[in-house]
Amino acid sequence: PRVTEVLFFPCESSCTEGLLSAEDASGDHCLCGVPHAVRRDSFSRLLSHLLSARVSLDVCVFSFSHLELSRAVQLLHARGVCVRVITDRDYQAINGSQIGALRKAGICVRHELSGAVHMHHKFALVDGRLLLSGSLNWTLTAVQSNQENVLVTDDPAIVAPYRTHFQRMWEDNDPA
Amino acid sequence: PRVTEVLFFPCESSCTEGLLSAEDASGDHCLCGVPHAVRRDSFSRLLSHLLSARVSLDVCVFSFSHLELSRAVQLLHARGVCVRVITDRDYQAINGSQIGALRKAGICVRHELSGAVHMHHKFALVDGRLLLSGSLNWTLTAVQSNQENVLVTDDPAIVAPYRTHFQRMWEDNDPA
Ligand SMILES: [Zn+2]
Ligand SMILES: [Zn+2]
Repeated sequence: PRVTEVLFFPCESSCTEGLLSAEDASGDHCLCGVPHAVRRDSFSRLLSHLLSARVSLDVCVFSFSHLELSRAVQLLHARGVCVRVITDRDYQAINGSQIGALRKAGICVRHELSGAVHMHHKFALVDGRLLLSGSLNWTLTAVQSNQENVLVTDDPAIVAPYRTHFQRMWEDNDPA
Repeated sequence: PRVTEVLFFPCESSCTEGLLSAEDASGDHCLCGVPHAVRRDSFSRLLSHLLSARVSLDVCVFSFSHLELSRAVQLLHARGVCVRVITDRDYQAINGSQIGALRKAGICVRHELSGAVHMHHKFALVDGRLLLSGSLNWTLTAVQSNQENVLVTDDPAIVAPYRTHFQRMWEDNDPA
C-alpha cells in the first residue's frame, strides 16, 4: 500500500523512549511523566519511519543536533543497517552538532567538498524506497518551535530522483 | 497527466527575461548575453510552474529576497491571480527582503503571529492543485549557490494536506 503522509511541526513534546528502547523493552519504566500511549504526533511518526529501516538509511541534512534523532541513527547502525550521512561543511562543527557523535559511533559521514555555499537539503531515504523530505532540520528548535513540514512518500517517481541525487552527492564528496 | 518533477539546485544562471516579459514579448531584445533557448534549468522550471497560475498562488516561505521570483509574483497579481504570501516574522524585515515590495504592489502578506520561533516552510501552491515544496528559500543564494531541492507534484494526496495547512495558517495569522 502506498505511503503518503505529511507531518507538520512544531510538535508538542512526547516521550519516545518506548520507540528508542531496545525492541524487547516496553518503555514503561521511563520516569518522564509524559504519556507514552499517544504515538500519532509528528515527531513520533518521523522517528517510527526512520526506525523502520532494515537495510539502509541515507540522511542528507543541513544541521543535525537533535539528540533522539542521533540515538535513532546510531541504533540503526548498531542493528547492522547501512547508514550514510551527508551534512553541511560549516554546520557539522557547531555547538551541539551530533555529527561528531555519529562519526565516533563508526557511522560514515560526508560533507560538501564543492564550493556550494551550503548543503541545505533536509531529506532522508529509508531502505532506498521511502522518502522523508521537507523544511525540517534535525534540531530541537525545528521539531519543537518552528513551523515545518516533512513529506513522507514511497511514490517511486518521487523517491527515485532523490535516491539518484544522494548517490551522486555521496560519490562526489568522497574525501579519499 | 500527473506532474512529478524534482528540481535540484544550485542552478547555473540563465536569463528568464523571456518568461517574465509580457506574453507577447519574445525576450529576444534582452542584452544579457545568456542563452534564452535552454529553459530546462531548475530555476526556469520553477518559474514556469509559478507563472502557470491562473486562479491563485499561495506562497509560504521563510525568506523571500529573490528579485525575479518577486517580479513573477507581482506579474501574477497584476494578471488578476489571487496571491497570498505567508512569511517569517523576523526575516520579512531583513535587508533585501522583497516583502515590502510585494505589500506596496497590493499583495496580501501575513506573517506568523504565534510564538513559533520561525515560520520555516518553503512551499507554494499553484491554483490549489500544484505543490512546490522543499528546502529552497526564495533567495539568490539558495537558487545559485546552495545544494537545494524542490518537489513539484499535483498528487492530490500530497497537495491536500499542504492546502489545508496553508488555509489554517492564513486564518490563524489574520491581523484583523
Ligand atoms: Zn517516557
Ligand atoms: Zn536575456
